[in-house]
Amino acid sequence: MSSDLIPNNSLIVATPEEGRALAMKMARLIVKAAQPDAAIREDLREIYSQNAGMLLQTCQIVATEFATIAAANNYWRN
Amino acid sequence: MSSDLIPNNSLIVATPEEGRALAMKMARLIVKAAQPDAAIREDLREIYSQNAGMLLQTCQIVATEFATIAAANNYWRN
Amino acid sequence: MSSDLIPNNSLIVATPEEGRALAMKMARLIVKAAQPDAAIREDLREIYSQNAGMLLQTCQIVATEFATIAAANNYWRN
Amino acid sequence: MSSDLIPNNSLIVATPEEGRALAMKMARLIVKAAQPDAAIREDLREIYSQNAGMLLQTCQIVATEFATIAAANNYWRN
Amino acid sequence: MSSDLIPNNSLIVATPEEGRALAMKMARLIVKAAQPDAAIREDLREIYSQNAGMLLQTCQIVATEFATIAAANNYWRN
Amino acid sequence: MSSDLIPNNSLIVATPEEGRALAMKMARLIVKAAQPDAAIREDLREIYSQNAGMLLQTCQIVATEFATIAAANNYWRN
Repeated sequence: MSSDLIPNNSLIVATPEEGRALAMKMARLIVKAAQPDAAIREDLREIYSQNAGMLLQTCQIVATEFATIAAANNYWRN
Repeated sequence: MSSDLIPNNSLIVATPEEGRALAMKMARLIVKAAQPDAAIREDLREIYSQNAGMLLQTCQIVATEFATIAAANNYWRN
Repeated sequence: MSSDLIPNNSLIVATPEEGRALAMKMARLIVKAAQPDAAIREDLREIYSQNAGMLLQTCQIVATEFATIAAANNYWRN
Repeated sequence: MSSDLIPNNSLIVATPEEGRALAMKMARLIVKAAQPDAAIREDLREIYSQNAGMLLQTCQIVATEFATIAAANNYWRN
Repeated sequence: MSSDLIPNNSLIVATPEEGRALAMKMARLIVKAAQPDAAIREDLREIYSQNAGMLLQTCQIVATEFATIAAANNYWRN
Repeated sequence: MSSDLIPNNSLIVATPEEGRALAMKMARLIVKAAQPDAAIREDLREIYSQNAGMLLQTCQIVATEFATIAAANNYWRN
């Protein structure tokens, strides 16, 4: 089954740590879908990884994706 | 039934992967509704796909739409 | 019953498509309430419909309103 | 009972229309708390009501407040 | 028990009004934690309380914190 | 078990105060993952801790992370 936008095509992961990694990965795959050119993406990555405001924007995205993943996994309560 | 703003007029999709694709599509259809001129839209797309901050903004939108789609699909838990 | 801020004074609509349209309409009615002058509004609309960043901001708003509408309608699951 | 930040100190309102009005009012009361000087506030209001990006920011705030109010009122389903 | 980030180390408050005040306080305590220097903080506060866009950003933060507080208090329904 | 992105690899904490601290820590660990160079990170931190808009952005991130943590802990109601 194709899974270009979500690794393993699933929101279910074993731990919060994996949930955070998944959140980061999901965001990156959207960037890839929106900008398919790898060289341009690399340039942009260079830009936002050295820009304070954009790093904060990245944090905001990860926080939003993670909220969904955490709910999907029932917050790993059990 | 008309569905200019949501493909198939439904939030229910089979997998998380399709949910991500739907989130991207829903955002694009809002851009289309807000800016009906295809040529202007193409120019703007050119702009935001090469702008680090705007790519991050795109990620934020997709994350927000996806949260709704994921809830609608009960996170594809079963 | 007055309904200057929500068409039909209700969040309940028949389909996701109508839910997206309602989300856009609700956002527009807030703009109208915040800036009652139609001429200024028209100028501003001209600005943000041709600005990539602002179009993305619009998508973010619609995504947020839609999340509420979708929950209100139980995601049109049945 | 003091209610400087929420009219009637309650989230419960009869209709979605009143819910939208409450969302706008709640946002305004936070601005008032953050900037107690009425003259400065008036100047700022002048600024953001004529600025496309800030009007969109206002819409985003109202959408967020309204999500809470709508949930509090069980989306006025009955 | 230490409570540098949340007054009384609790999200439970008696009324929506107190909930709004708590939301503002919680945001301020994060600013304090992120920028421990009181003089710099005072300067920054001066800046954002007179800047329309930043006042709106403040509203957005309070709306987000309040959503959590309101849910914690079951929207003060009873 | 590795936990580079979440301390103790868990969202469950004893108090709201610890929940706020966890929210701040989780955001910082994403910054670290996105920008592994400690010296650059230190420079960026210097920038955003003295910038009013970025401090507010930080508050927004913490508010978003905290919403998830609070839900995971059932708002520490009992």
